[in-house]
Amino acid sequence: MTYCVGLRLEKGLVFMSDTRTNSGVDNISQFKKLFTWSKPGERVITIMTAGNLATTQTVVSLLDERTKAPEDRSPSILDAPSMFDVARQVGELLRDVIRTASPTGERADSTFDATIMLGGQIRGGGARLFLIYPEGNFLEASTDTPFFQIGETKYGRPIIIRGYDRTMSMEDAVKLLMVSFDSTLKANLSVGLPLDLQVIERDVFEPAHEHRVTHDD
Amino acid sequence: MTYCVGLRLEKGLVFMSDTRTNSGVDNISQFKKLFTWSKPGERVITIMTAGNLATTQTVVSLLDERTKAPEDRSPSILDAPSMFDVARQVGELLRDVIRTASPTGERADSTFDATIMLGGQIRGGGARLFLIYPEGNFLEASTDTPFFQIGETKYGRPIIIRGYDRTMSMEDAVKLLMVSFDSTLKANLSVGLPLDLQVIERDVFEPAHEHRVTHDD
Repeated sequence: MTYCVGLRLEKGLVFMSDTRTNSGVDNISQFKKLFTWSKPGERVITIMTAGNLATTQTVVSLLDERTKAPEDRSPSILDAPSMFDVARQVGELLRDVIRTASPTGERADSTFDATIMLGGQIRGGGARLFLIYPEGNFLEASTDTPFFQIGETKYGRPIIIRGYDRTMSMEDAVKLLMVSFDSTLKANLSVGLPLDLQVIERDVFEPAHEHRVTHDD
Repeated sequence: MTYCVGLRLEKGLVFMSDTRTNSGVDNISQFKKLFTWSKPGERVITIMTAGNLATTQTVVSLLDERTKAPEDRSPSILDAPSMFDVARQVGELLRDVIRTASPTGERADSTFDATIMLGGQIRGGGARLFLIYPEGNFLEASTDTPFFQIGETKYGRPIIIRGYDRTMSMEDAVKLLMVSFDSTLKANLSVGLPLDLQVIERDVFEPAHEHRVTHDD
């Protein structure tokens, strides 16, 4: 399985994901699930993925335009006018990738399904956070629901509900996520270390802090 | 759904259950899920149930021997020589009730399934805690796994894993369960107040404390 959380705070966005993928308990591996694109000073976009690994890797590769020769690549999400437009692009891409793999098209329970969390900021707009469904539609985090979780969401939820405060510091937010991940790691073997952390501060337009949390951290 | 927890401590046993049952979110009701039998000074037995309400009510009624006229009733679990034997009796009864309702017999995913937590103490033995499956087989709580949960177990699990200590006082154990239930109530509408609490102190052989936790408690 997977566990990813994105928090929207007054001071910016914080993302954390685990790195374990599995196909049964007897077949686990480690894959990155957190990806970042940025044009320093202009925009920063982060994606976290949960679900079918073939689907999510294809989506990320297509966002990177890896079908083109390296010198021709210019990811269109780096040219999108708004975060809303990025979410729409990613949603359409996700739906199309699932539809290609699945003979019956996208369905909520398809083997090829995946869910994507998207966050970031483009100069002129605010720091925004989206949850994109396999059908290509999406939600945006609001003051009422200021965070999203994907994957194994249950064990780690109570501490976020109790501890979240939109005015909290980035340091406190990272601590909160560490407790939430610890709860999940202790209870579900299919969520595993190391963890990827990414902090996006408001109006900075590049990753403020990236860190991989390992066993001996 | 349902949420029930039983803790085995050095000082005895603590049980807590919610009281909500539902068939879809548009059909909820309140039913007791925690039942106690005792022969003061000799034994005390507590059962908590999760699963199909018709199944669990039938099991409890049969344990009470409600098929007989009130004056002839003498629940056989009050004569069983050991807690292990009580667990065996309850397990067989549960399996038979499910088998009667379900044309295909007991299966882990049957609509008629139920799970039962059983705890108590009979003079001469220790305070013991069992988890009984719809198939009639059961587990016993040990030092390694000193508590059981049934129903919606995920949200409330991390706090128990962190907070449990087998030497803790009954008061602290009740507080721990209150936090665990609060986590679950906040996240799953199908678990609801009031909560039933039952404390069994070691070598007391009757319920030490029974309490219903309501909204304005």
